[in-house]
Amino acid sequence: MAGNTFGQLFQVTTFGESHGGAVGCVVDGCPPGIEISQSEIQKDLDRRKPGQSRITTPRKEEDKIEILSGVFEGKTTGAPIMMMAKNKDARPSDYEKLKDVFRPSHADFTYEKKYGTRNWQGSGRASARETLARVAAGAIAKKFLKEKLGIEFLAYVEQVGNIKIKDVGVGLDRPELIESNIIRCPDEKVAERMIQYINILKREGDSIGGVIMGLIKNVPIGLGEPVFDKLSADLGKAMLSIPAVKGFEIGSGFEGVKMNGSQHNDPFTTNKRGKIGTKTNFSGGIQGGISNGEDIFFRVAFKPVSTIRKEQSTVNKNGQNIKLEATGRHDPCVLPRAVPIVEAMAAITIMDHYLRNKTLCKA
Amino acid sequence: MAGNTFGQLFQVTTFGESHGGAVGCVVDGCPPGIEISQSEIQKDLDRRKPGQSRITTPRKEEDKIEILSGVFEGKTTGAPIMMMAKNKDARPSDYEKLKDVFRPSHADFTYEKKYGTRNWQGSGRASARETLARVAAGAIAKKFLKEKLGIEFLAYVEQVGNIKIKDVGVGLDRPELIESNIIRCPDEKVAERMIQYINILKREGDSIGGVIMGLIKNVPIGLGEPVFDKLSADLGKAMLSIPAVKGFEIGSGFEGVKMNGSQHNDPFTTNKRGKIGTKTNFSGGIQGGISNGEDIFFRVAFKPVSTIRKEQSTVNKNGQNIKLEATGRHDPCVLPRAVPIVEAMAAITIMDHYLRNKTLCKA
Amino acid sequence: MAGNTFGQLFQVTTFGESHGGAVGCVVDGCPPGIEISQSEIQKDLDRRKPGQSRITTPRKEEDKIEILSGVFEGKTTGAPIMMMAKNKDARPSDYEKLKDVFRPSHADFTYEKKYGTRNWQGSGRASARETLARVAAGAIAKKFLKEKLGIEFLAYVEQVGNIKIKDVGVGLDRPELIESNIIRCPDEKVAERMIQYINILKREGDSIGGVIMGLIKNVPIGLGEPVFDKLSADLGKAMLSIPAVKGFEIGSGFEGVKMNGSQHNDPFTTNKRGKIGTKTNFSGGIQGGISNGEDIFFRVAFKPVSTIRKEQSTVNKNGQNIKLEATGRHDPCVLPRAVPIVEAMAAITIMDHYLRNKTLCKA
Amino acid sequence: MAGNTFGQLFQVTTFGESHGGAVGCVVDGCPPGIEISQSEIQKDLDRRKPGQSRITTPRKEEDKIEILSGVFEGKTTGAPIMMMAKNKDARPSDYEKLKDVFRPSHADFTYEKKYGTRNWQGSGRASARETLARVAAGAIAKKFLKEKLGIEFLAYVEQVGNIKIKDVGVGLDRPELIESNIIRCPDEKVAERMIQYINILKREGDSIGGVIMGLIKNVPIGLGEPVFDKLSADLGKAMLSIPAVKGFEIGSGFEGVKMNGSQHNDPFTTNKRGKIGTKTNFSGGIQGGISNGEDIFFRVAFKPVSTIRKEQSTVNKNGQNIKLEATGRHDPCVLPRAVPIVEAMAAITIMDHYLRNKTLCKA
Repeated sequence: MAGNTFGQLFQVTTFGESHGGAVGCVVDGCPPGIEISQSEIQKDLDRRKPGQSRITTPRKEEDKIEILSGVFEGKTTGAPIMMMAKNKDARPSDYEKLKDVFRPSHADFTYEKKYGTRNWQGSGRASARETLARVAAGAIAKKFLKEKLGIEFLAYVEQVGNIKIKDVGVGLDRPELIESNIIRCPDEKVAERMIQYINILKREGDSIGGVIMGLIKNVPIGLGEPVFDKLSADLGKAMLSIPAVKGFEIGSGFEGVKMNGSQHNDPFTTNKRGKIGTKTNFSGGIQGGISNGEDIFFRVAFKPVSTIRKEQSTVNKNGQNIKLEATGRHDPCVLPRAVPIVEAMAAITIMDHYLRNKTLCKA
Repeated sequence: MAGNTFGQLFQVTTFGESHGGAVGCVVDGCPPGIEISQSEIQKDLDRRKPGQSRITTPRKEEDKIEILSGVFEGKTTGAPIMMMAKNKDARPSDYEKLKDVFRPSHADFTYEKKYGTRNWQGSGRASARETLARVAAGAIAKKFLKEKLGIEFLAYVEQVGNIKIKDVGVGLDRPELIESNIIRCPDEKVAERMIQYINILKREGDSIGGVIMGLIKNVPIGLGEPVFDKLSADLGKAMLSIPAVKGFEIGSGFEGVKMNGSQHNDPFTTNKRGKIGTKTNFSGGIQGGISNGEDIFFRVAFKPVSTIRKEQSTVNKNGQNIKLEATGRHDPCVLPRAVPIVEAMAAITIMDHYLRNKTLCKA
Repeated sequence: MAGNTFGQLFQVTTFGESHGGAVGCVVDGCPPGIEISQSEIQKDLDRRKPGQSRITTPRKEEDKIEILSGVFEGKTTGAPIMMMAKNKDARPSDYEKLKDVFRPSHADFTYEKKYGTRNWQGSGRASARETLARVAAGAIAKKFLKEKLGIEFLAYVEQVGNIKIKDVGVGLDRPELIESNIIRCPDEKVAERMIQYINILKREGDSIGGVIMGLIKNVPIGLGEPVFDKLSADLGKAMLSIPAVKGFEIGSGFEGVKMNGSQHNDPFTTNKRGKIGTKTNFSGGIQGGISNGEDIFFRVAFKPVSTIRKEQSTVNKNGQNIKLEATGRHDPCVLPRAVPIVEAMAAITIMDHYLRNKTLCKA
Repeated sequence: MAGNTFGQLFQVTTFGESHGGAVGCVVDGCPPGIEISQSEIQKDLDRRKPGQSRITTPRKEEDKIEILSGVFEGKTTGAPIMMMAKNKDARPSDYEKLKDVFRPSHADFTYEKKYGTRNWQGSGRASARETLARVAAGAIAKKFLKEKLGIEFLAYVEQVGNIKIKDVGVGLDRPELIESNIIRCPDEKVAERMIQYINILKREGDSIGGVIMGLIKNVPIGLGEPVFDKLSADLGKAMLSIPAVKGFEIGSGFEGVKMNGSQHNDPFTTNKRGKIGTKTNFSGGIQGGISNGEDIFFRVAFKPVSTIRKEQSTVNKNGQNIKLEATGRHDPCVLPRAVPIVEAMAAITIMDHYLRNKTLCKA
């Protein structure tokens, strides 16, 4: 109810702040018998971790995941899986000066007003470090869905500022290109321009936003509930719950509003093997809230990171106008590190709906 | 779990198909002591109902709401409120010919595959008639929030196809203009062009999508939960659960990705009365998932209605390719009727988070 | 959250007060394809309804159930099922004099204090009339579980006041005897004594409690979740949620505390067909919170009905001590009418856990 | 959904098995600003831990609790609180011989059949070690409820086998006597007899059950929801979820069924200070599912511990009949160690309903 759990059947509860103690999650409702190891999970965490390239924050966090329950002899048992990464001990002095300051477009002000208190060390609970727990939980979902159903999750950076690749959409033919560069954009040339642009912003002490495209392939027909828990609505919520996300669209999205129904409707057709599919896919793989077997694709808009080195004006807890010069080491652009987070949230959502569909519709 | 309930504390469960029986909802978790009457609720329902103008479907449905529980001597009692509108008796003959057909971009195919059956009369559970129950529940939430906290909900049509008003955003100075025309667009001239365009499409038997802007004013600071149940994520889910919605953005949204952090950050400042606020509002009134006291605004993208009169190709249940000519009477553009639905879902979401915040943070 | 919903996957939400409007439920999460008719459901309702025999209240309520959604062409569709029975119009005059009185051991006082208001007509939401909705929902669960899995639900009156049958427990060999008398006790002679005793109390204007034994046969192994949602815990909650229930025990219950472990442990053994079972069944069919395939049996204690005709002292809303002589027509003993309620709540609980088990353990 | 979470608003999710890794919980929905320290929590854990006296198992487990999130500068922040106690490393050899055996009245058989696998080290997830997490969470709830509302939780051993104290019920006048002896029974003489009896069973390698009385004092009026989530139903579920519990009764319970309504009804009366209360308390402090301000009291029946040293017959995984001689070190009677668990579950339940009531009824 306090919103630290995602999912109805595959339930991921995250905990932890950025400094002191640990960040982690409890995954409840995971089917028994899935082979899973710490190293498999670590692989995705390493794609999210800071300091992985010259365009991410130089902060060094190890993000080493431990599994403390729910796995026995290398397999899930059906019991809750607790995983966590210990935090480095806080160096309060680094944050002491931010203790009484409300940084612009951060959660400092809203936390303080909501709770009457806040953990000011490294943003406390509002730290993006929380997302490592999502990536860990998502790794289990991805493993299960890939092995059991062949479902695949892909995400890549489509746009940074005004730099954008041409829509390769679900036709993405060489997914291995995504991981071939540090911005995680499958178009090498565009990737290079993005990287150069981010480097400039880094030097200027500024930041930039962007768009991540998410793809889900081989989704079985029937996932999603028809009214409030449409698969598109739950994917949307999953993405909008990621820090810095300001927009979500599925299939034709905001562009689709300009089309006529006769253009936008996806005609059904039967292929040579007798399988019914659609000729076009403006629906983005979801119709009436339910997956129709076509590829699911969606876009996620990330605002520019709030933490910048440039001087800004703001107020302190007493309401006095002050100048703020951030000195922490942060990302000029979160997009490359957000790619595995988008994949993880997509996987958790699909996993949850896979279990939900099974319960009702194969009773 | 089957997704017919929205909300954690203010819980709206809808039921009903388009023909036979009734469509309605149970509102559980509504505080006692709210004065509410059927006529107040009916007012919003009349803004949603079909046949209200020459640009909506000419179908006549009365949508007359009855309250059957939870209200005593004109006030809510804290018990579940059941409200419903009886359906006209089905004329199966109208739909008989659609019984075995999968209409393009409708839910026929996905329902059939998911449930192994479907109620083919007037789209059954997938009918947009379900949304009347949301509007009824939303009317109660709006009443409570307005009287208790002064919160106001506004929505209007910002775009139809390529016809778009200039962004008046939260600066909307004459909200009464929204209801002054049948498209519910506060710019009279743009409204006129939208109406003309829809009339052309109506004659052609085609349809068009659009964008609705939603505004929430006077939201207290502190609503929303910081991790998965961010206020922005729950508003997004609420909107994406409305039939035909393909996109959602809050504050700067997809445009915001092009800005630098130094431009996009909303500087805090203290006004003359000592109240802390922000100079700009690219955040859209939500920071770190929590309302910051500024106006909340968001955009919702609606695809063109799937039901058109133009001939289309599709398949039937046996997978045979067929031609489909729809003859039902449907809306060329759902936008004007969707305005009260957007308001209702926004109100239900805010109501739920108001109750959630109270439980934890004023313990 | 306001507690009007039972179940996690098979979710029964009841609504309605005793007078005016209707009493009913929404059953969400019911698998599609179950044949169900109003007359089947009515059968169980008739076992619960008032006025069915000379030892129940002479009030006449028809309790005629209508299905208004979720069933199409005689079968469930997977959409929420709304069922309701209209109430007779209230005769406020009957209750006017109770408007300001707190009847002893009724919910008048607690409702008034909790909600700041209460519907005083016929106990409003606290009326046992609410249980008709449970019986209707239970009828669907029973139908599904019987046809799909062969599970059977039985309940009977074991004790009224001090009159008690010898424990026939799960060995109950002639279940048809339960319905052969108006008290629903399978021992004819004891039944006769119970009936006579109740008749005496009826004349005296007093009431009496009793114990209902519940049996569930042919439960598959594996239902129930191991920690908080043990099958025994959820059955206990289901029973303790029935009006007037003050106690619940499973298997050996309170008597079992007197046994040594070496007596109480149920030894496993393999029968001739190679099936593993237990020689004794002190566990009552549940071990570690999970069904083990043996018969499940439990006992439910009902206090004497609070409404009596004898004069009682109490206070009114102003705290003044007053004398109260009830004149309404009520049951001297609710036990016979509670038998179908116990069955219904057991069926709803098992149905929910059947679906829950399927989702996790057959993934 | 997999049943590892208790509570709707104050949500306690436990994780962990008995060997390897850790046992702990995430407490979500805890109000901010509560002062809490590890040592306060440890105090209750020490009352639960094994090896605390000569009548409990001689196993030594330290059960040292660590708080890893949600507490900052000694106070809760509103973020999820993760607490855990590391397990000793497993000595698989101790359990190797139980790997393929279904111990009578244990969860071995049901887990194996439900999940297709089980962690056989020290009963895995079915270990009573899980309850240490409940005690830790309960300590926070007790602290809050005591400081904020003056609510007190007491529990004591009322009966062991046939040895029983006279009902001192809510009249318990010297609660400090509970902790004065190792069985936690406030009647010194009866306590002595219980201890002697348990010592005999210990020597014989057998075990015995008993009854714990729970008391909750100073509960505000209005906690509990009227239909399914009656306070009595949720307390019942809380207690029935504790390992080895087979029965629960509130107020007059099973004895109350023998009383007439005219005896059992609790007459309201106004005391000298103008406060309305009841003359008797057969209701046990709850009417219509809602607390009425009187003391809440209930009884919990614990079966004899399944693990005994005496030889027993059972079957192995292949269904072969075998003899089993347990050699582990276990409790002959869990009652004294269960006292803090009963208190903890009561506190978690009241805490949850306190928050639930606040949300709806003080809106």
